[in-house]
Amino acid sequence: MEGIVRRSIARADPEVVDAFAELGVATVHEAQGQAGLLAARIAPIYPGARISGSAVTVNVPAGDNLMIHVAVEQCQAGDVLVVSPDATTEHGYLGELIATALSSRGVRGFVIDGGVRDVAELREMGFPVWSSLVSALGTIKAKLGDVNLPIECAGQRIEPGDVVVADDDGVVVVPRAKADSVLAACRERMAKESASRARYAAGEVSLDVQGLRPSLEEKGLRYVD
Amino acid sequence: MEGIVRRSIARADPEVVDAFAELGVATVHEAQGQAGLLAARIAPIYPGARISGSAVTVNVPAGDNLMIHVAVEQCQAGDVLVVSPDATTEHGYLGELIATALSSRGVRGFVIDGGVRDVAELREMGFPVWSSLVSALGTIKAKLGDVNLPIECAGQRIEPGDVVVADDDGVVVVPRAKADSVLAACRERMAKESASRARYAAGEVSLDVQGLRPSLEEKGLRYVD
Amino acid sequence: MEGIVRRSIARADPEVVDAFAELGVATVHEAQGQAGLLAARIAPIYPGARISGSAVTVNVPAGDNLMIHVAVEQCQAGDVLVVSPDATTEHGYLGELIATALSSRGVRGFVIDGGVRDVAELREMGFPVWSSLVSALGTIKAKLGDVNLPIECAGQRIEPGDVVVADDDGVVVVPRAKADSVLAACRERMAKESASRARYAAGEVSLDVQGLRPSLEEKGLRYVD
Amino acid sequence: MEGIVRRSIARADPEVVDAFAELGVATVHEAQGQAGLLAARIAPIYPGARISGSAVTVNVPAGDNLMIHVAVEQCQAGDVLVVSPDATTEHGYLGELIATALSSRGVRGFVIDGGVRDVAELREMGFPVWSSLVSALGTIKAKLGDVNLPIECAGQRIEPGDVVVADDDGVVVVPRAKADSVLAACRERMAKESASRARYAAGEVSLDVQGLRPSLEEKGLRYVD
Amino acid sequence: MEGIVRRSIARADPEVVDAFAELGVATVHEAQGQAGLLAARIAPIYPGARISGSAVTVNVPAGDNLMIHVAVEQCQAGDVLVVSPDATTEHGYLGELIATALSSRGVRGFVIDGGVRDVAELREMGFPVWSSLVSALGTIKAKLGDVNLPIECAGQRIEPGDVVVADDDGVVVVPRAKADSVLAACRERMAKESASRARYAAGEVSLDVQGLRPSLEEKGLRYVD
Amino acid sequence: MEGIVRRSIARADPEVVDAFAELGVATVHEAQGQAGLLAARIAPIYPGARISGSAVTVNVPAGDNLMIHVAVEQCQAGDVLVVSPDATTEHGYLGELIATALSSRGVRGFVIDGGVRDVAELREMGFPVWSSLVSALGTIKAKLGDVNLPIECAGQRIEPGDVVVADDDGVVVVPRAKADSVLAACRERMAKESASRARYAAGEVSLDVQGLRPSLEEKGLRYVD
Repeated sequence: MEGIVRRSIARADPEVVDAFAELGVATVHEAQGQAGLLAARIAPIYPGARISGSAVTVNVPAGDNLMIHVAVEQCQAGDVLVVSPDATTEHGYLGELIATALSSRGVRGFVIDGGVRDVAELREMGFPVWSSLVSALGTIKAKLGDVNLPIECAGQRIEPGDVVVADDDGVVVVPRAKADSVLAACRERMAKESASRARYAAGEVSLDVQGLRPSLEEKGLRYVD
Repeated sequence: MEGIVRRSIARADPEVVDAFAELGVATVHEAQGQAGLLAARIAPIYPGARISGSAVTVNVPAGDNLMIHVAVEQCQAGDVLVVSPDATTEHGYLGELIATALSSRGVRGFVIDGGVRDVAELREMGFPVWSSLVSALGTIKAKLGDVNLPIECAGQRIEPGDVVVADDDGVVVVPRAKADSVLAACRERMAKESASRARYAAGEVSLDVQGLRPSLEEKGLRYVD
Repeated sequence: MEGIVRRSIARADPEVVDAFAELGVATVHEAQGQAGLLAARIAPIYPGARISGSAVTVNVPAGDNLMIHVAVEQCQAGDVLVVSPDATTEHGYLGELIATALSSRGVRGFVIDGGVRDVAELREMGFPVWSSLVSALGTIKAKLGDVNLPIECAGQRIEPGDVVVADDDGVVVVPRAKADSVLAACRERMAKESASRARYAAGEVSLDVQGLRPSLEEKGLRYVD
Repeated sequence: MEGIVRRSIARADPEVVDAFAELGVATVHEAQGQAGLLAARIAPIYPGARISGSAVTVNVPAGDNLMIHVAVEQCQAGDVLVVSPDATTEHGYLGELIATALSSRGVRGFVIDGGVRDVAELREMGFPVWSSLVSALGTIKAKLGDVNLPIECAGQRIEPGDVVVADDDGVVVVPRAKADSVLAACRERMAKESASRARYAAGEVSLDVQGLRPSLEEKGLRYVD
Repeated sequence: MEGIVRRSIARADPEVVDAFAELGVATVHEAQGQAGLLAARIAPIYPGARISGSAVTVNVPAGDNLMIHVAVEQCQAGDVLVVSPDATTEHGYLGELIATALSSRGVRGFVIDGGVRDVAELREMGFPVWSSLVSALGTIKAKLGDVNLPIECAGQRIEPGDVVVADDDGVVVVPRAKADSVLAACRERMAKESASRARYAAGEVSLDVQGLRPSLEEKGLRYVD
Repeated sequence: MEGIVRRSIARADPEVVDAFAELGVATVHEAQGQAGLLAARIAPIYPGARISGSAVTVNVPAGDNLMIHVAVEQCQAGDVLVVSPDATTEHGYLGELIATALSSRGVRGFVIDGGVRDVAELREMGFPVWSSLVSALGTIKAKLGDVNLPIECAGQRIEPGDVVVADDDGVVVVPRAKADSVLAACRERMAKESASRARYAAGEVSLDVQGLRPSLEEKGLRYVD
């Protein structure tokens, strides 16, 4: 960690960023070639939220949330704060007060490969958080980290300004430069799925809807009684 | 894995199968001699569901859901699809589309020692799922497995046609041949507990209700001030 | 384990105990110097409960809940039953029947570094439980343990009569002798946070509210474009 | 669990069973189509052992090793004892005394999806064990289970008499009926690998040895500077 | 945590303490009634050590090893340093330098419910350590904790001066006041096991050596072919 | 993942790279400001190895080792192959054959946030590997990934050509551009520690060697009897 705060970052077209919120994590992950998904330990602290936004990235030392305070000031409406501690601990890095500050700036959510606390208050505020842990364990505010440098978080590299999409399935990141093309691919996928859904609801099976029978036969599947 | 689909399986008497749904997992587990419980990692993706059904069993290669597509066609109303991947991964094997197909056939739920995705949609549809993981990570459809051969899932052997009972406590399996006797034992247990419950609610303690005091004294329990 | 039940324990002033319920775990943990928090694996079985009470402590052998039955009788209104099994297993030590007995005595909740079952019923009854596991796996009632001796639970020593506070963030314990001073410290903290909250909601950042800028400059933080 | 001991089980041809010991787990797993591997949590308690043998299977209640005592008598020279507790706990089911009894009967090793103890003594005796845990936590001897019924262990179904192969990579099971054909497939694989090994040692890369370049080009791999 | 160092602690009779080293953890755990065992995550960093000693106990804040430095001075020959961080993290609290200081004072080993580093050097020095983790992650030296107050460590309460026994199976603690009686019970157990061992080595099975057959028959065990 | 192989990467001065091997992971981690350490789950498959080398980085799809085959060709003497699968699974990505190829090219070791197999053979060959898992579970060779793009691995960003240092404590990465200055800082630290070590071995305590007493007094540490 360098002790650097990058103030000016490029973000994707706001309309593109916003459009991702309706799509959901699974669709985005598939549409960009099964890529960009954070590890499954990153889960929502309450069910039902679905957001997209531009990543403001933060590297923090384990058990120290000083740089999250620094990062708040770098956030603008439509952003998602993404935090990566440099080691695994049971600390709660975010609480209701920081969430209030983020919320007042129009920040849409918070993602961390670590713990958060005040989850009852966060749920009540409707401020969505994806974390690997819930814990009230207090942090210190002692050491520097970085804001808006590329980070890794739960198995994915995230650049500031990348598009972050999060829902009950987890969190996926779309590189800023690919946001347009991934959005297009998502919509194509959605259209296709919508057609299939009707057929499934009507009782058809995917072996027919997706034309899987010949391939199964070729692989040697045997039906017995 | 053999690449085999058994089309005709024996199921328990539908009235017996259905009766289990009111009983709950803990009761069934106790009534069959503290047996049949899947490992605690198998949990519901949303709270409040309680089902019973006949097992359609599926073995799948890790990260591959082709055979789940095959299995859908083998399901009938009143079944529960139970899936066992052959290794631990973070893939999401079931999503909303397959659930729509299962739901349209009257399948009551889905159990997997692995991941599922689209959990917000599944909750909205009211299609209950018990899994060890939530993850949007996409699978492939490449390799064969088996449908309706005996499987092991989260520490239990399950034969096709066995009765599966699932609620917020987890999942328990009742061998088909024992369904009648276990159901009877459950009802006996329920009756007994119902009587006890009234006494507990009235302020009595189990030391008296269950007559535990003599045994405690014999074991040497000492009360001090 | 000794096979001892201590019947008379000192509790903190009921008004003090009750006052903690409004404060929340994170506040209490901070106000007593970031101390007393149980490990993060101890989580509520359903969201939204917040309680405080006097600890009745129980040591139980792994997979055996006999002493929980014994402990029920030692509980009075305003207590929280805290249970520590002597090894890690997937057993469910508490179910709806014991909870009914506890509830009828005015016990406010149950904390265990182990499993519980009947969680749907517990949620419906509104009897709050914090546990490391949900599992229907049945216990036996065979071996003695202790009631109201000091225990350790999920990384904290708990004396009978200590104040236990629990909410969606987890569980924290306050030594009985410090209950007054910790309560005072909590209230001071709450007042301070309340003032800060208004400023955050109005758009101020913690760098200003908490006066962090000089320290950041001194540490060498660099802002770049 | 039934409380049943099957005394007479079919075993594979001893020469075939013994031949597997030289092959290693990875080779056997691959040669039978990437099947039969127990979950990765099953690891050797000391490095360097490599065995094969006929499975004697045991189902035990969690924390109870009574049936292991029963099973010892059913073992003969060349067997491997495979034990599956019905729930996850930290108990140590096998110690040096049972190992002495097994060793005196010519049993080649012990596999358990649970804990073992006296590991220093077991290492000194040269009695190899694969387990998910090392723990001195004592068991009881109270409840019945089964010997030589089909079990599931760490994600695999094992029939009594199946061939178990174990080394530093873990444990794989070969169904008895397939032992001959899998052995042949292993030998073929070994021969092929032996040829490849010489080429790799001489500096060739697998892109050439395995002829992977055309497929990479077809998939669109790009080499840049 | 109080910031207190207790300088004078009572230790058990040195001959008694030393005698435990030959017995091993499993024997001690059994002989004191299956009690006192630390959780299975506490494992030796290298195989083959077996020690006993008097506990010097330390509470440390998560990620801070200042109090370990303080504790070194309170150790004398024959002691074992036992450290309990107040939360779970991946820090390495002990390295080769502190081990050198401990070793020069005649300290016999180190037990921690947390991480240690320099494990190659510790192995080379022959300074045995039992920990839940190996990690080079550096700590800070900022906050106070306590030395020689009662602690909890990995599920057990440990008083300063209690006897700690550790080997490849893990770590067990014997309360100081019971050291004599537990030692006697251990020796009795050892004698009994020694007799049994000879019979097992000669091919007898425990069903006969321990006289288990009548109980099995009574429980209803069935032998089938 | 892009399907890109970067052939030409910058490496640090070979003398600098080699010098790190004598220093060890803990020293390097501390000397660069407690940074660069991979998560503690990355551990050596056998004890005693200590290496340094230039990173060749590989992104692979979960359960697919095709790109490791591709990467071998990009390695030269003095390199360390560092592999990051895009999701968590129990596959074994590296075996003895690839290790033979790597070894013949002078590659010094292999680091992966995933599984490896043939660990007995790797130990015998003396080819050191740091992994999060040992598993024989076979991979496929189907999908593209990247070689020598920046990756994240177990919580750290690694650029191709960065210096990787690994020993029994784990793995640390030094950015190529900082290799010189970190090496200098390491040597300074080593010199200081060497002086301290002599004093510790002579019985001095760190409270004096490091001059910690005044700070302890100031923090309010109390010594009691």
